[in-house]
Amino acid sequence: MGEFDLIRRYFARPNSAAASVSVGIGDDCAVLQPTPGMQLCVSSDMLVEGRHCLSTVDPVRLGHKSLAVNLSDLAACGAKPLGFTLALSLPHVDEAWLAGFAQGLFALADAHGCPLVGGDTTRGPLNICITVFGEVPTGQALLRSGARAGDELWVSGTVGDARLALEAFRGSLALTTDAFDAARLRMEQPTPRVGLGLALRGIATSAIDISDGLLGDLGHVLRASGVGARIDTHIAINLIAINCSQICQKSISEDTNLLDFVLAGGDDYELAFTAPAHQHAAVRAAGVSSGTRITRIGNITAASGVQLVDANGQARPDLYASFDHFA
Amino acid sequence: MGEFDLIRRYFARPNSAAASVSVGIGDDCAVLQPTPGMQLCVSSDMLVEGRHCLSTVDPVRLGHKSLAVNLSDLAACGAKPLGFTLALSLPHVDEAWLAGFAQGLFALADAHGCPLVGGDTTRGPLNICITVFGEVPTGQALLRSGARAGDELWVSGTVGDARLALEAFRGSLALTTDAFDAARLRMEQPTPRVGLGLALRGIATSAIDISDGLLGDLGHVLRASGVGARIDTHIAINLIAINCSQICQKSISEDTNLLDFVLAGGDDYELAFTAPAHQHAAVRAAGVSSGTRITRIGNITAASGVQLVDANGQARPDLYASFDHFA
Repeated sequence: MGEFDLIRRYFARPNSAAASVSVGIGDDCAVLQPTPGMQLCVSSDMLVEGRHCLSTVDPVRLGHKSLAVNLSDLAACGAKPLGFTLALSLPHVDEAWLAGFAQGLFALADAHGCPLVGGDTTRGPLNICITVFGEVPTGQALLRSGARAGDELWVSGTVGDARLALEAFRGSLALTTDAFDAARLRMEQPTPRVGLGLALRGIATSAIDISDGLLGDLGHVLRASGVGARIDTHIAINLIAINCSQICQKSISEDTNLLDFVLAGGDDYELAFTAPAHQHAAVRAAGVSSGTRITRIGNITAASGVQLVDANGQARPDLYASFDHFA
Repeated sequence: MGEFDLIRRYFARPNSAAASVSVGIGDDCAVLQPTPGMQLCVSSDMLVEGRHCLSTVDPVRLGHKSLAVNLSDLAACGAKPLGFTLALSLPHVDEAWLAGFAQGLFALADAHGCPLVGGDTTRGPLNICITVFGEVPTGQALLRSGARAGDELWVSGTVGDARLALEAFRGSLALTTDAFDAARLRMEQPTPRVGLGLALRGIATSAIDISDGLLGDLGHVLRASGVGARIDTHIAINLIAINCSQICQKSISEDTNLLDFVLAGGDDYELAFTAPAHQHAAVRAAGVSSGTRITRIGNITAASGVQLVDANGQARPDLYASFDHFA
């Protein structure tokens, strides 16, 4: 099968009826029609086998995750998805793999009204590069630089489960089958918080996508905003969905290890965001309206750095480092 | 050196003064400000070592080419460059390579006022994925579907030299040093025809970027437009810049082989475009105003397919196939 046949068979769909897409797949460029008064948000992520996904991953889940990590960046800016490009390097043409990948990819794309508008395919080591486009009313993008001392610090969904699954894959801990399946689903099929991001426009002062670990990504917000944060660890520990103290069969029984996964686990694709205390009820309402669990885990402080504080108000040492692809 | 340090050192530049970039590198998304009345053109290309570039290529030239192949897609739509994202997978952090790559990349970006606005870096087999954004007045994008019977068929620059260099690298022919250097420069540092694309707005009826071979890419135009073409091979043969009948030292002395390179060589990044005969002088003027050599190589026909015709008006067999990454 030739390259163009491959593209046509798995990725060329009837051009989207979306008003924003004037020309989709099949020309030198896609042509998009911006909405007057809106700004364009753009993000690009590259997934490499062995680093961002295991070779054994279900292609349906990989298709989902490839787009989800990009939609998560739009969510962190409060942007509405418009479309995406897909560049795909494949070692060989595996039709079952392509069919599964396309199924997972398009199911998520359709759920968010985000059509594939163009891209590229080539032969080479497996590499998936998606660039996503969204729009936000001019000046309303949620940025990393807007956090202010006194703001409340919030996190969406659950955090740490993806790392728990990774450690189970690595054999450094054992989970019950149910717990492993649940953690693995979080790792392989993360939920981008697009609806929450939209609902937080005009309410949140800053937001970031937690992909490299909560503390590491929060650090980007704190530096960009010139502030610090206090995190209540007895609250943050509950961000992990899988209750390891009950279900782990070996090696992980101490609170400290679970907190590692929450604070520095990585691969979560949840939002960390800040909002003024007087917006507390509005933030709660944004969680409800978007169907997203949200947890307030601390506050923004004028003093720089991160203080970890336990239930007794005692400071805990901060020994966590963000996941870094070149560390 | 960590991932974030790497990004900062080589790719983070002072945020562009370009009015179109509201938020550049360093947030979850770049935020671009579309110009009212303009449509957004988007294209994405992925370069893989061993397929699109040799491991021995000068990183300065590779940086140039990585962006050039994307700017060429904008040129084919008549779009003005606005910015680009870069996703880069590297097997290891080689600072000399990164410095050279960034130098070539930014020299071309600066020449076209096209700032880097965001992206991703990861560890993995060398893979370079650039997505480029441009704009065009609403409804004026040059598409593949606009060619009409009677239009003249034009090609920019020179075609076939990149394939000549590739064959010299492969050892299937030998070139003099000067000829090899010239052909290699065409392969490794192609010139995107952005100025010509802009000058052809409102004049050309269709355009395409010749990256997979002239006949193969022209085929996309012909199918999209529902027409055919006649190519005068005695004119087309002159598209190759390197005069092989004089400089090749072995294996390539017949006109037929040179014509192979012109018609199906690939990797040229020139524009093939069509325009009505009454626009002949306007097309010539677009070439002059953009400083681009242009050659009329034939005509669009109502009958489908491509006829190759020699200087005596005799039909030649069409035995050429487009380069296909999965063929």
